[in-house]
Amino acid sequence: MEHKGFTVWFTGLSGAGKSTLANLVEKELRCRNMKVEVLDGDVIRTHLSKGLGFSKEDRDTNIRRIGWVCQVLSRNGVVAVAAAISPYHDIRDEIRANVKDFVEVYVEAPISVLAERDVKGLYKKALAGEIKNFTGVSDPYEAPVNPEVVCHSDRETVEESLSKIMGKLQQLGYVSS
Amino acid sequence: MEHKGFTVWFTGLSGAGKSTLANLVEKELRCRNMKVEVLDGDVIRTHLSKGLGFSKEDRDTNIRRIGWVCQVLSRNGVVAVAAAISPYHDIRDEIRANVKDFVEVYVEAPISVLAERDVKGLYKKALAGEIKNFTGVSDPYEAPVNPEVVCHSDRETVEESLSKIMGKLQQLGYVSS
Repeated sequence: MEHKGFTVWFTGLSGAGKSTLANLVEKELRCRNMKVEVLDGDVIRTHLSKGLGFSKEDRDTNIRRIGWVCQVLSRNGVVAVAAAISPYHDIRDEIRANVKDFVEVYVEAPISVLAERDVKGLYKKALAGEIKNFTGVSDPYEAPVNPEVVCHSDRETVEESLSKIMGKLQQLGYVSS
Repeated sequence: MEHKGFTVWFTGLSGAGKSTLANLVEKELRCRNMKVEVLDGDVIRTHLSKGLGFSKEDRDTNIRRIGWVCQVLSRNGVVAVAAAISPYHDIRDEIRANVKDFVEVYVEAPISVLAERDVKGLYKKALAGEIKNFTGVSDPYEAPVNPEVVCHSDRETVEESLSKIMGKLQQLGYVSS
């Protein structure tokens, strides 16, 4: 039953499908009797980062905290699955260096598609200037240069994306085939 | 190799010996091939609570964050060993309720002894009024009402204290005898 800990880190714009995929990966790994903890950016803010805003500094602090929890879980044999916009390249790479067993999954979709979907109604507000520092609209998103997996949530089914991720985890030796 | 996760929570005044005992418990549990993570209050402040001060509200926030990490680790089969002053009764009990498998260790020593030892030179400063909100001097410490273990660091050796703690963990079924 013992298995190696690692971190699956989902990054991408709001509404791209990070949490959906994170929860599916969790389910898959649990079926294999693995220990998994999902760290959802929004949930983590209530536990670890109440009071932080969305400036670069506050975002970096929030992401570093999630990263630290991933590191602690991973080194104790737990799979940490993080889903957070995490817009900045340097901080993601800092966490990669700390965690070591780090699998970056970029959930990509054009902003036009996301604004069209607008599940949480946030893009409408952001485009109307009602939300400041909204990633992809009024705040930068730095796409990963060399992520382990890229999921195109505008033109793949969630099953296809999940299959890509699980395939990569097998290929990397984190999950037995 | 699989074992149940739980939390050993050290509470007590600054300099009472919480970190020393936490590290010894860690060592003991590692010898038994258990997964252990020490969460030291001072270290956690740099990772999760930079910017927080020592008002009741900020202390509560800091302790809740440590408690949340203990909860996440414990439910994933890891032993979390927290060492933090954690002066307030209600927050410790809140964490106890959340974590469930929670073993509270009160490391007790009279303030006169701690001020005499003054390993970090903090009591001298606090008594001179140079540090505000210093627990036991200018800020309250609410002793646990019914902790699982009480260690008297002024009149027990660390070996005796450690033996008490390990005995209780065995008695509670967390560690095999």
